[in-house]
Formats: sequence, structure tokens, C-alpha cells
Amino acid sequence: MMPPLEVAGRCQRVRERFDQAEALLISDLTNIRWLTGFTGSNGWVLLTPQDVVLVTDGRYGDQATAQLAQAGVDGRVIVGLSGAAMLDALADEVSPYASLGFESAHVTYEQFQRFQGLFKATLVPVGGVVEAARRHKDAGEIARMAEACRIADAALSEVLLDGLEGRTEAQVRNQLEIRMRELGAEGPSYETIVATGPVNAARPHHRPTNTVIEAGHTVIIDVGALYDGYHSDMTRTFFVGEPTPQQLELYEVVLAAQCAGVAAVETGVSTAELDGVCRDAIEETGYGEWFSHGTGHGVGLLIHEDPFINRTGDLKLQVGDVVTVEPGVYREGFGGIRVEDLVVVTENGCRVLTASPKDSPCPPSPPTT
Amino acid sequence: MMPPLEVAGRCQRVRERFDQAEALLISDLTNIRWLTGFTGSNGWVLLTPQDVVLVTDGRYGDQATAQLAQAGVDGRVIVGLSGAAMLDALADEVSPYASLGFESAHVTYEQFQRFQGLFKATLVPVGGVVEAARRHKDAGEIARMAEACRIADAALSEVLLDGLEGRTEAQVRNQLEIRMRELGAEGPSYETIVATGPVNAARPHHRPTNTVIEAGHTVIIDVGALYDGYHSDMTRTFFVGEPTPQQLELYEVVLAAQCAGVAAVETGVSTAELDGVCRDAIEETGYGEWFSHGTGHGVGLLIHEDPFINRTGDLKLQVGDVVTVEPGVYREGFGGIRVEDLVVVTENGCRVLTASPKDSPCPPSPPTT
Repeated sequence: MMPPLEVAGRCQRVRERFDQAEALLISDLTNIRWLTGFTGSNGWVLLTPQDVVLVTDGRYGDQATAQLAQAGVDGRVIVGLSGAAMLDALADEVSPYASLGFESAHVTYEQFQRFQGLFKATLVPVGGVVEAARRHKDAGEIARMAEACRIADAALSEVLLDGLEGRTEAQVRNQLEIRMRELGAEGPSYETIVATGPVNAARPHHRPTNTVIEAGHTVIIDVGALYDGYHSDMTRTFFVGEPTPQQLELYEVVLAAQCAGVAAVETGVSTAELDGVCRDAIEETGYGEWFSHGTGHGVGLLIHEDPFINRTGDLKLQVGDVVTVEPGVYREGFGGIRVEDLVVVTENGCRVLTASPKDSPCPPSPPTT
Repeated sequence: MMPPLEVAGRCQRVRERFDQAEALLISDLTNIRWLTGFTGSNGWVLLTPQDVVLVTDGRYGDQATAQLAQAGVDGRVIVGLSGAAMLDALADEVSPYASLGFESAHVTYEQFQRFQGLFKATLVPVGGVVEAARRHKDAGEIARMAEACRIADAALSEVLLDGLEGRTEAQVRNQLEIRMRELGAEGPSYETIVATGPVNAARPHHRPTNTVIEAGHTVIIDVGALYDGYHSDMTRTFFVGEPTPQQLELYEVVLAAQCAGVAAVETGVSTAELDGVCRDAIEETGYGEWFSHGTGHGVGLLIHEDPFINRTGDLKLQVGDVVTVEPGVYREGFGGIRVEDLVVVTENGCRVLTASPKDSPCPPSPPTT
């Protein structure tokens, strides 16, 4: 039995963190979902000292009312039948307040100009208030992400049983995504990456093509599931046929860096320090320039969210953060190798949510018929 | 054989439309893809009188170079290994210009503040320059959308052969999405909607649940495929078991409005006029308040893009626009009905890209065993 999401207290927790203006306007839809349970594709939430007001369009009125009630959020829903009507309704609701915080990373320049024209309140740019609160995943959120990981693990193990050689990247992607659906996922957590050979696997975010997986290739598979709005994220790398000494050497380099990264995850570690653990491990072997991206990122209702783990990261890990640890090396001509786990920061280190084996880059042999 | 996308001339076409500043910064990733062929998830494009400069991060350097070359775009790729390094590189490239246009509907307030701090150029807010050019779909784009429609039509017809009654919304959704993949789609064009019964079908953008489809229900299925980056969009409504007189009456109302809308699509018609054709047809029957959304929207690299077709729309349809026509009625207790086609505006009217039958809301009987 999945523990429930504890949505009801979230608006109050954000209010308690926020003192920069009398009221706060939330425009980011992920923040709105987290605060209220509303999953529609259009809306604003106004958080006042007493009230939660959701403004949406005609497609979502009934749905919004039901979703807020189900989440236990005591809020009002206002429907505007056009974008202009929504803005007018919002202006009415804002009118009692002298100052209004807005999400400066989500409000566009154009929207800001419109708000300035319509609202009498002083507009106060605010950064990441809800995002900071979203970092702490509750038991219901972690259970959903663990289930998403379980689904992706199961799908990957089934695909490997069928073997990789001779299939196209797109065929492997399709099988993974279909099996994740059948295993209970809403869908893939992101565009599944299957990247094979000296060119495609050298691109960390390659999109699957009709390239055939052949002996001698490195194959990067980066796959996650979406479960009740929550994402998982995992990467494994495989060699097809007998691996070359360089392939094996670099796999050991990346795996050692990744394991060191996972071992270093604990509360209080800064995101730059954690990035450094993986980066130093790879740089010491002389392959530092092949590691062309950050070490990881937070995961939750978004596949990429705070805390981002890279050279310039200045956040400290805290209990309830769910983050990836995913160093990799890439070079056109060689291909690429990445190993990635999803972990949740606990009181005493971390718990790894992804369970696919990573000790060897050689996939199990497909059954012979 | 799919005609190629004609990417190479697009930057020049946008330059010719643009005279508000010396250079133009594109930050919207869909606009960047359309202009250059680059499909990565992070980047900016600077369009100068002579140059196309793409700034991206370490994950995408090789990919960007290859995609620009493949699209025939003569551009430079610059890689920044962090967000700060990307901004610094961009500032260097901007430095020769006294004025810089930026996409005011895509640049956030926070990014704007950062640009102001870093760039010496006068920043000029610009709205929809690339979006306006994107409206005209070339033969390659239309062929991809037609293929996406074909895939969704085929998937829907197969699902109907298996029957709807007794299956859950989520099961029908899964079958549709799996079959679209198997038929060649990259994935669904958007979150497939399967909405059944007096509550769920009354929500235009319902997300499929484990609700079982039962006799007496109206079932709305809104499904599209993604093919080589291009979307399709279609809705059909079905009645399970013997329809009630009210269900049949309202189906006729919606179908008549939708057919009138498709018949009214031609160059020069304003989006508000087209919306009025569907809205008036429904209002005349007394059900006007049940039509709680706009009549349609443009479709292309995005599932929702210009031109939006609603009461306040002030654009005129032009050759090469690809738009939906999708009136519907919704009422909790009754359920909902929507009929939607995707059409491309031609020299003499329009061509309908979606081909699933819509003359009757009764699905074919499943084969008896």
C-alpha cells in the first residue's frame, strides 16, 4: 500500500518560509501541483495570509475543485474563460495586497509587464521558495519514486534478457517504454536514451535512432519511469561482444567514481563537494576532460530539479533530497560510459533506490534457442 | 519517401522579418530546433547579420555540430561547461552589437536581470518573431504531421476493434500509446486522454485513471502521435451500449459544429471568426455554456502553438497553418463530447489530416468469439 502524499500542510509551510511580500503568486505548474494537487496545464495560485486561490481556465474548473478537495487543500477555485478573464480575476484577488511576490525564474518578461500594468501591488521578485520546500520528499513521494525505480529496473532486466546486439537503438527504447507502461508506469520519466557505438554513445543526451547495436560497441541506456507524477532516473552502460582493454579500463574508472560519489552522499555535504568527489576520481586517471557534464541533479515531480550537483553548486544536501549520481566519460571515436543511480539522503548517508546491477558492463547472454 | 525539412533557409527568413535590433537572441528551444535542427535541452542561438551562433553545454557540443551540419545551417557552436560559462560566452558574442532583441515570452524575469547585468547592448523585447515564421509548414513538416495522424488513426482503429466496455481508461491509453510506438511514432504527441462516464468525461483534459468503461458512458479519446518531432492531434467520442436520446442529440450538435468549423477554414478567416462558427452552432441549440474552451490551436513542433483559435483570437489563417478544430460540450452528470480534426490550410480551403470516422459515436462491435 502506497503511503499518501501529504499535500495539505504544504501551503502553510511555504507561507512560513516567506516574508518578502504580503501575498505570493505561484505560476510554475509543478509548484502548483506540489502545493495543491492540481495537475492541469494552466493556472495560477495566489497564496495570501488566509487563503489559497487557484485561477484556471474552463477546461479545468471541476477538476481543480475535485483535486484540491482530494488533497485536503482548503482553497477557492476561480475559472476564467479566456486568458484575459483569468488575468482580470487574478487582479481582483491581488487588489487587497500592497505587495506581491512572484516567481522570477518562471514569470516571463512579457508576463511581468502585464502584471505591472494590471496589479497595483508592488511586485517583488522571489527565487525558489517553493522549490526549496519541494526538496524534502515525504514518505509518499519517496515510495512513488522507489516504485518508479522498481519498474525501470524490471523493464531493463527484461530487455537485457532479449540481448542488445543486432537491434536498433529505437527498438530497445520502444521495448523499455512499452514494458514500463505494462508494469504500471504512466510513461517514461524522460526521453529514454539508448546510445550505441563510437559516435552516438559519445553524446550524453543522444536521442535513439535506427543505428544497429553491434559487437565492439559501448551502449548507454538511460531509463526511468513516471509513477503518479514522480520520476526515476538510472543509467547503465554495456559492452557488446568482448570488451577492449580500454573499454574495461574506462568502465572501472567511471564505476569507481560513481561508487565514491554514492558513498559520499550525506547531509551537510555541499553539491560542489559531491561533484568534486566524482570529478577528482576521474581526473586522477587522466580522463578528466572526457567528463563533460555535472555529477547529478535532484529528482521529484521534475526529472531535473534542485539540488543540482556540479562544480559551482552551493547547496548542502539535506535529509529528504533525492538526487542522481551519474559521472560519465565521452569521446567521439571511443563512445561513452555513464553509470547513474538515484539515491535519497537519509539521517545516516543515503539509500539507493535503483537496483540494476552495475558491477559488470557485460550484459547477460541472451538465451540460445 | 518523406520530403526533407527545409531548415537551411529559416534563419535568413527570420532575419528578413526582424529589424528591431542589430542581433536577435533566441532562447526558446522549439524555436532553436526549427531554426537550426538542434534538439538538445539547453542552448541559445544568437542571430547576427552574418552569423548563426549556438551556445550550449558540454553534453551537446558534438551533437549540435552534427545537427547544424545535417540541416545545412552554416553556424558556429560554442560549448560552455557551466551555466555561467555559457552566459560569459554569450556575452562575448553579443559584445559587438549595440542592441539585442530577446524573446520576451520565453526569457524569464530572472534571466532578463542577468542579461542586463552582463550585456552592454540595449535589450529590446520581441514577441513571436520565430513563432510567426513557424506557422507556415513546409512540405516536409506537413508530411511528418500527416504520418503522425496516420499512426494515431491506425492505433485508434485497432483499439476500437478490441472494444471499450469493461476496460479501464488507463488500459485503453496504454494500448493506444504502445501501438503508436510500434507503428513508428517516437511517442504520444501529448498525454493521451481517455475519459469515461459522467464525471471524468466532463473534464476536457482528464488524465486516464483506473475507472472502468461501462455501458451508458460517453468516452472521449484524444490521441496523437509524435513523428520526427512533429505532433498530431485528434479526438473522437464514443457511446458504450445503446446511446440515450440526449447523448445522440448532443453528439449531433457537436458534430455539426465541428463540420461547420472545418468547412469554414480558409485563408483570411480570423481565428475569432472561426471560433464563432463553432460557438454559434452550439449556442443556437441552447448548449453554449457547455462549450467551455476555445475551438482550436496551431500544431507543429509543439502540440499547442500559434494560431490559437478562440473568442479573442486576432490572427488570420494563412496557407501552411496547421490547426485543430475541436468544439466540445461538458457537464458533470452528463459527461462530455468532443470531436477534433487536424487540418492544414491550403490555397482553396483546407485538407483534413485526421481520418478516423466521426459520423457515428457508436464504436464497431468487438468480434464475438
